[in-house]
Amino acid sequence: MAEKTVKIGLVGFGIVGSGVAKIILEDNDEIAVRTGLRLELACVVDKDITTARVVSLPDGVLTDDVDQLLNDDSIDIAIELVGGTTFAKDLQIKMLQSGKHVVTANKALLAKHSTELCKIAAENNKCIAFEASCAGGIPIVSAIRTSLAGNNIEAIYGIVNGTCNYILSNMTTKNEDFETALKQAQEKGYAEADPTLDINGGDSAHKLIILSSLAFGYELKLEDVYVEGIEGIAKADINYGGEMGYILKLLAIGKKDSDGKVSLKVKPSFIAKDDPLAKVDGSFNAVSIFGSAVGQVTFYGRGAGMMPTASAVVADVIEVGLGNSEKSFRATSLKPREQVLPLIKKIGNTLSRFYIRMMVKDQPGGLASYSRVLSKHDISISGVLQHEGSGPDNTVPIVITTHLVRQQQITAAMEDMKNLDVVSGKPVCISIVDMPEDTD
Amino acid sequence: MAEKTVKIGLVGFGIVGSGVAKIILEDNDEIAVRTGLRLELACVVDKDITTARVVSLPDGVLTDDVDQLLNDDSIDIAIELVGGTTFAKDLQIKMLQSGKHVVTANKALLAKHSTELCKIAAENNKCIAFEASCAGGIPIVSAIRTSLAGNNIEAIYGIVNGTCNYILSNMTTKNEDFETALKQAQEKGYAEADPTLDINGGDSAHKLIILSSLAFGYELKLEDVYVEGIEGIAKADINYGGEMGYILKLLAIGKKDSDGKVSLKVKPSFIAKDDPLAKVDGSFNAVSIFGSAVGQVTFYGRGAGMMPTASAVVADVIEVGLGNSEKSFRATSLKPREQVLPLIKKIGNTLSRFYIRMMVKDQPGGLASYSRVLSKHDISISGVLQHEGSGPDNTVPIVITTHLVRQQQITAAMEDMKNLDVVSGKPVCISIVDMPEDTD
Repeated sequence: MAEKTVKIGLVGFGIVGSGVAKIILEDNDEIAVRTGLRLELACVVDKDITTARVVSLPDGVLTDDVDQLLNDDSIDIAIELVGGTTFAKDLQIKMLQSGKHVVTANKALLAKHSTELCKIAAENNKCIAFEASCAGGIPIVSAIRTSLAGNNIEAIYGIVNGTCNYILSNMTTKNEDFETALKQAQEKGYAEADPTLDINGGDSAHKLIILSSLAFGYELKLEDVYVEGIEGIAKADINYGGEMGYILKLLAIGKKDSDGKVSLKVKPSFIAKDDPLAKVDGSFNAVSIFGSAVGQVTFYGRGAGMMPTASAVVADVIEVGLGNSEKSFRATSLKPREQVLPLIKKIGNTLSRFYIRMMVKDQPGGLASYSRVLSKHDISISGVLQHEGSGPDNTVPIVITTHLVRQQQITAAMEDMKNLDVVSGKPVCISIVDMPEDTD
Repeated sequence: MAEKTVKIGLVGFGIVGSGVAKIILEDNDEIAVRTGLRLELACVVDKDITTARVVSLPDGVLTDDVDQLLNDDSIDIAIELVGGTTFAKDLQIKMLQSGKHVVTANKALLAKHSTELCKIAAENNKCIAFEASCAGGIPIVSAIRTSLAGNNIEAIYGIVNGTCNYILSNMTTKNEDFETALKQAQEKGYAEADPTLDINGGDSAHKLIILSSLAFGYELKLEDVYVEGIEGIAKADINYGGEMGYILKLLAIGKKDSDGKVSLKVKPSFIAKDDPLAKVDGSFNAVSIFGSAVGQVTFYGRGAGMMPTASAVVADVIEVGLGNSEKSFRATSLKPREQVLPLIKKIGNTLSRFYIRMMVKDQPGGLASYSRVLSKHDISISGVLQHEGSGPDNTVPIVITTHLVRQQQITAAMEDMKNLDVVSGKPVCISIVDMPEDTD
């Protein structure tokens, strides 16, 4: 097949941007053979045009003037790797309005403004491609949008934040406490200097919105996601959960019930040790999808980093260059959420099993009083763990797992429990997530 | 976006065919909303037009006359789900020549005749889509071809035969012997009445050829694959390997070395217990791909069965209907193998570690004689396992693991070993496969 050349402009010559430039410049010939498409890096924009990167650009390509890219009509595809939701938003709009398709890894921007941006793209007859926005090198966006298009997707369970998974893995396997594990992650470059958006679950929520919108076919909003981060996790609970056969992960969960209602949550969750997601360690990401036809499919790989993310950006550039993304983009029509009202299932109404750990004074009547509270809220106990012996303050940790209950039952029970005389401090309460069964 | 209708003809109304018809007929509206494409099942051909299936077709759709499909110019896409390599080959050629794109799950046919079929498709300006041919519902073909197009793929490690994986899993977790596990697999419907092509590794070789051709960019032939099946596997070896930290899987391995040479093997292989592939149990499939940019990505899901395979067929139908597959198909130009001569690395020259188990007579001098043989062939020992006590015939099993050696060294050493006086019977020799490291 005759080669077709596409000219590319890139804004943001940081870690991922350097990786993208490296692939385009160095693997150009290989990509042309594989895809029939010759990628030409016409313009790279960054405010820092002096620091050396892992790749050196041909003369005249690097500039600090974004207009050089916007005004170049020969550029077909513009890559936005600036990040953030203000400058980047204006930039993407300008890119689209100047007749360029947009490729981006900017999950925060898409989670907040995708409706507006997609409208502008459609008006300008251009597309936005965003494989790199979710789970780095794992091709999860294209899996949901094209490979699983014959399925009604019922649920998504994802480990989509490498920082949190690295921290929880180290707390689990190295018995580190949260602070130590976080410091480790920062030293290794897996966590930002300010890791707030990672550990508070915000970043996972961004990705969940993007994936769930595609999977369930509705415009979803960030406010639709119930979010808990991992800041409060104690290693004691990881250990007790482990004794009961569970591993703690920060899960992003999107589910569509048979009534069409959608629930979206990001929560530290205990999952069974033999679930595929339980075995995802370190900074890796994984996403399990349950489809009406395919059953469970799980995708595993690097969710961040220079080259894995660059791999996803370049895949998008190629698909846009071939004209495929444009078709999929135009074909994806998200239903207005008014079609199912209320679309979002309130967190209090969602069902889950729970892990509860209380510090209980080692005195007669303890068991009677907290089991009375659970019984009052109609919560049925599934398992109990209490080791013999008590700590220096004469309290003992008691761990209870429940059968399925509504979140609001647990919340109310925890309030009562806190006020019990025998319970010291605030009880810890963590969801136990049982994945749908898809076994032989 | 305005809906586009594509008319579909299907030949082969068996298990997978029924699943495909079910999705197209029942999820039609949902698919139209998701993709902008309305799928219309115009014609279903099977020689059995009386037996009831899981789905009932509208009147006039089912026929035993394939010409009804071939002569209908309004049909855009023809699905071949007949299987086999003779009738199906003629059929695909006729489909292409009558101006229809072909969607197929036929791995045996593609592994043997894809060059010829792709040429005919190109001449007729049509494409062949074959996501369902490898690993059922796992979107591995599109992952290699599009999502990882920015990567030079270095290696593929796959568990791509559900029958073998079911048998080996049961031998491992239920301590069953091969015959019992095979019978189980047949009773559960995971193995054919004649399971030869599954358990001798032939089916895995078909899939390996298809995936490796795409991944490495060369036309590969079935003769290029070194194949060993699982027929000879004893549960004793699964147990001893387990004691040493390994799980036995039938792996399909394709590797491209830095010199451009390709090695292709299907072999029972020990892999480390903590590798993602080691945790793939039962009839599930999984494929790990190592790419120059993305590192390790692993895809896990159902490799066979009515609905998972139908999921992949329908995804292909949609991608063909949107016009995307055609572009990718035309863009995929496999290099003539003459470009690297000899392209295929001979199995004898490939490096591996090995697990060796011998039954050794419990008498003085044993250790000395077999360690002399290994030393003569320059094979360095990595681990030894010998339990105390001997069996009724006064032999003891001795398990040795080696460092990296060439296959031909091991083959020669096994010959010598067999002739040793202290060794009873033929030693067992199984590869130990160390996946490339991609860890934190």
